[in-house]
Amino acid sequence: MQTGKTIFKKIIDGEIPCTKIYEDENYLAFLDIQPVSRGHVLLIPKKEYLWIQDMPDNEIADIFIKAKFLIQKIKEALGCDYVQLGIVGKDVPHVHIHLIPRYFNDNLPQSPQKPYEPGEAEKVAEELRSVL
Amino acid sequence: MQTGKTIFKKIIDGEIPCTKIYEDENYLAFLDIQPVSRGHVLLIPKKEYLWIQDMPDNEIADIFIKAKFLIQKIKEALGCDYVQLGIVGKDVPHVHIHLIPRYFNDNLPQSPQKPYEPGEAEKVAEELRSVL
Repeated sequence: MQTGKTIFKKIIDGEIPCTKIYEDENYLAFLDIQPVSRGHVLLIPKKEYLWIQDMPDNEIADIFIKAKFLIQKIKEALGCDYVQLGIVGKDVPHVHIHLIPRYFNDNLPQSPQKPYEPGEAEKVAEELRSVL
Repeated sequence: MQTGKTIFKKIIDGEIPCTKIYEDENYLAFLDIQPVSRGHVLLIPKKEYLWIQDMPDNEIADIFIKAKFLIQKIKEALGCDYVQLGIVGKDVPHVHIHLIPRYFNDNLPQSPQKPYEPGEAEKVAEELRSVL
């Protein structure tokens, strides 16, 4: 039953659940299920692009202005020292921006990614949604 | 003789040399001297901002459109599979966007960063500048 859809397209289409943080007409932000740190968010465009350079300039502008907004909100909600921004783009073939809460004394990226404990994803999502 | 300038401000002001790839009125791109991979570029705004969220939205738009342009050019010059984009922002207190040439079969980020062999930085810079 290969549909050809990426996991992110299935999330956009509501076929796979996600812990949603933010959504508007063009963008969706949700928790990474293998967080590098607590509150690690993925921001994706609803339009399907494989690489960031495939996006037209006006959409590049829009998505990074949105990323800035989310960085401010993540800092406000979690009290982290800063938010790391990254695009690797190798794992899921749909552009996604990683927004990773960071602390000056953390040991990242050496620390391994690990899934949330039961209930913890919803808890951090609530903290994030409370400022959005 | 602490001037209070960051190393990037000294590079912008021409007080410290860099292997320049691209420059315009508002932005400067040069080789990271501790490259994660061959051709690892840093893109910085000439205006001093500590964090990406300190930049006004129109400058956020501009710098990421510039990053997109450089990603396309790095791919064209080096034939890499993709270009990883990242902002950590902890090491030098001046916003900088890492643009890291990547290959599907590379072993990053496990591979350690190491300086260029003598002459190699200028060689890769020439390759990059040839398409810019």
